[in-house]
Amino acid sequence: MLTTTSSQLSARRGEVIPSLHEAKAQAFLTTALPNVRYLTGFTGSNGALLLTEDRALLFTDPRYGTQAPEESDCEVKVAKGPLLKEIAKWIERLQLKSLEFEQNRISFEDYGQLKEHAKGLRLKPVNSLIETLRAVKSETEVAAIRNSVRLNSTALEESLRRFKPSMTEVDLAAEIDYRMRRLGAEEPAFETIVASGKRSALPHARPTSARIQTDELLLIDMGAIVAGYASDMTRTHAVGKLDAKRRRMYRAVLESQLAVLDAIKPGVTCASVDRVARNVLRGFGLEKLFIHSTGHGLGLEIHERPRVGRKDKTKLVTGMVITVEPGVYEKDFGGVRIEDTVVVTTDGCEVLTPTPKELLTL
Amino acid sequence: MLTTTSSQLSARRGEVIPSLHEAKAQAFLTTALPNVRYLTGFTGSNGALLLTEDRALLFTDPRYGTQAPEESDCEVKVAKGPLLKEIAKWIERLQLKSLEFEQNRISFEDYGQLKEHAKGLRLKPVNSLIETLRAVKSETEVAAIRNSVRLNSTALEESLRRFKPSMTEVDLAAEIDYRMRRLGAEEPAFETIVASGKRSALPHARPTSARIQTDELLLIDMGAIVAGYASDMTRTHAVGKLDAKRRRMYRAVLESQLAVLDAIKPGVTCASVDRVARNVLRGFGLEKLFIHSTGHGLGLEIHERPRVGRKDKTKLVTGMVITVEPGVYEKDFGGVRIEDTVVVTTDGCEVLTPTPKELLTL
Repeated sequence: MLTTTSSQLSARRGEVIPSLHEAKAQAFLTTALPNVRYLTGFTGSNGALLLTEDRALLFTDPRYGTQAPEESDCEVKVAKGPLLKEIAKWIERLQLKSLEFEQNRISFEDYGQLKEHAKGLRLKPVNSLIETLRAVKSETEVAAIRNSVRLNSTALEESLRRFKPSMTEVDLAAEIDYRMRRLGAEEPAFETIVASGKRSALPHARPTSARIQTDELLLIDMGAIVAGYASDMTRTHAVGKLDAKRRRMYRAVLESQLAVLDAIKPGVTCASVDRVARNVLRGFGLEKLFIHSTGHGLGLEIHERPRVGRKDKTKLVTGMVITVEPGVYEKDFGGVRIEDTVVVTTDGCEVLTPTPKELLTL
Repeated sequence: MLTTTSSQLSARRGEVIPSLHEAKAQAFLTTALPNVRYLTGFTGSNGALLLTEDRALLFTDPRYGTQAPEESDCEVKVAKGPLLKEIAKWIERLQLKSLEFEQNRISFEDYGQLKEHAKGLRLKPVNSLIETLRAVKSETEVAAIRNSVRLNSTALEESLRRFKPSMTEVDLAAEIDYRMRRLGAEEPAFETIVASGKRSALPHARPTSARIQTDELLLIDMGAIVAGYASDMTRTHAVGKLDAKRRRMYRAVLESQLAVLDAIKPGVTCASVDRVARNVLRGFGLEKLFIHSTGHGLGLEIHERPRVGRKDKTKLVTGMVITVEPGVYEKDFGGVRIEDTVVVTTDGCEVLTPTPKELLTL
C-alpha cells in the first residue's frame, strides 16, 4: 500500500499531542510544506496546519480549493489573502491562548506577524518536532522511497545504454532527467550532477557543455522525486582507461562505503558511522580529501534528519533511511563518490539501491 | 554581456551601504541564497554574506572551497561546521557591535543562535532590502531573462512538434523538460504543468499518466532556469475541436491578457494592473473564476517582487520584469491561462515571450 491512509495521517497528528501537553500549549502550527504534507496529505505549494487536540485545520489559497479537500482529511480553510492572517483569525475564533510554533521553520518576520495579529497569544518555540518524527519512516514510506530509488536506478541504466563518448555533460544530464520523468518521476530531487575529468573533483559540479573526456573519471549524482519521496545515488564510472592513481581512489572509496554499510545498525551513533568512513580512507592516506559528511536522511525532502556527520550524536533507529556517500576529491585531478540509499533494519541495514558498485567502464 | 562583472557586483553591494547608515548598523548579513548570489556571484547551495563598509566576506563549506573563489570577488571563508558559528566568530574578530539582518529570510531559530553566539551584538531587522533592489533588473539581467524566456519558448515549440494524441500528460512534460535541458537550461524553474481536459481547471495541476484528451483544453505552464535566471510561460491549446464555451473562455482570457499588456507602464500600481485583468473578465461574467493574482516578478527566483495582485500598491518601474497571466478555471470542466514574461520599459512594456497566443489546435 503506497498511499498514506487517513488513519495513518491521523495517527501522525496524534504524535504531536504529547508535545502540546509538555509545552502546555493548546495548539501546534506548522507552515513548512513537507511537514504539512506529512501531517495532512496535502501536496500543494502553499499550506499550513493548525492542530489542536480535537481539530486539524489545513489552510491554503484558492488555487488549491479543489485539490486540498481531495488530498486531505483535515478541515480545509481557503484564505484569500496571506495564510498567516487567516490563521490568526482562527486562533481568535478558537479562543486559543497558547501556540507551539516551529522555530526552525518560521521566519523572524512571520513570528513577528503572528505576535501582532494574534494579540495576547503565548508563543512557544519548538525545534524540529515533526522533522524528528519524520526521521523514522513507516513501512508505507520505506516502500515509497524504495520505488523512488528503483526508478532512479532504472533511469541511470537506461541513460548509460544511450551513452556516447561524444556526449557533453549536459547531454547526459538531460538524458537522465528525461528517463526519470518518462519512468514516472515528478522531477529530479536536485540538479543532476554529471562531472567529467577534473570537474569530478567539485562535489557539487553543475553539468557543462564540455564533452565527456576519455581515460577520465565520470561522476554522476542523481535523485528522483516519486510520489513525493526522494532518492539519491552517486556512481563514478571510468570512461576509457583509468590510471593506477584513479583506480586506487575508486577502491578506497568503495572500501570505505562498504565498511560503513557493515557498521550501520540500530543504536550506533551517526558520528561513529562517519568515523568508519574516514578511518578506511585514512588507511589510503586520503582522509583529508573527504570534505563532506558521510550521508544524510531523506524522505519527503532530499536532506532530512539525521545528518551522518562528524558531530551528529543521533543514534540510528530501525526505519531510518539514510544515504551512505563517502568521496575523495583532488583539486585539478578528479574525484570519486559512491552513494547508496539504505534503510536501517533491526540488525543492520538494507541497501535499497540496486545499481552495482564495481567500477564500470563506459 | 551576460556575465555579471566584479564591478557590477561591487556596485550592488554598494547599494546596501545607505541602509546600514540609516539603521546605524556596522554590517549587513544575508543567508538567503538568491540574495547571496546577487551580491557575490556565488552559485553554490550553501552560502552567506557578511558585508561591512569596506569588507565583503562570503561564507561557505568545504564542498565549495574551489568554486567560491572562482565565482566571487569577495573574501571567501570556508567553514567546517555551521556557517552561523563561523559568522559569529568573524563578527567578534571584526569587533562589530551592530548588525542588520533579513527578518524575512532568517528563521526564528537562527536569529536565536546569532543572539547567543555573538553576545552583546545589537541585531537590527530589515525587511526585503535585497529583494527590493532585485525587483528592478539591470540590462545584464534583462538579457539573461530574455535568454531564459527564448529557450523556454523554443523548448515548447520543439516539444509540440513531437506531440502525438496518444501521449500522456507525463510524456509531454518529460519531453518539455528534456528539450529544455538539451537547449542548455540548468533545470525547470518549477514542476512543468501539463493538464488536459478537466484537470486544466486545477491551476497547479501535476501531470498524470492519463492520456491527453481530444476535443479538450490542454494547459501547459513551463519555465526554465538558464544561467541562474528564470522564465515562465503558460499556453492553453485546443486538442481537436473545442466547443463554443471553451472557445469563449479562451477569448476572454486572451482579451484580459492583452488589456493588461496595454496597461503596463512605469508609475501605475500593481493593484491597478490586476484590476484591468479582472475588469475584462467581468465583461464576460467570468471574473469569479479568476482565482489567483495577475502576475509576479521573476529573476533569480521564479517568484519575486512585485506581486501583481489586488492589494500590491507597488508602482511599476522601468526594468521590472513580471509575468502577466490571467486565467479562468471552472471546476470539473476546464481552465484557460495565458502567460507571458514582460519587462517594463520607459513608456510601456516589452513582451519577452516570442510564442504566439492565437488558439493553437494540436
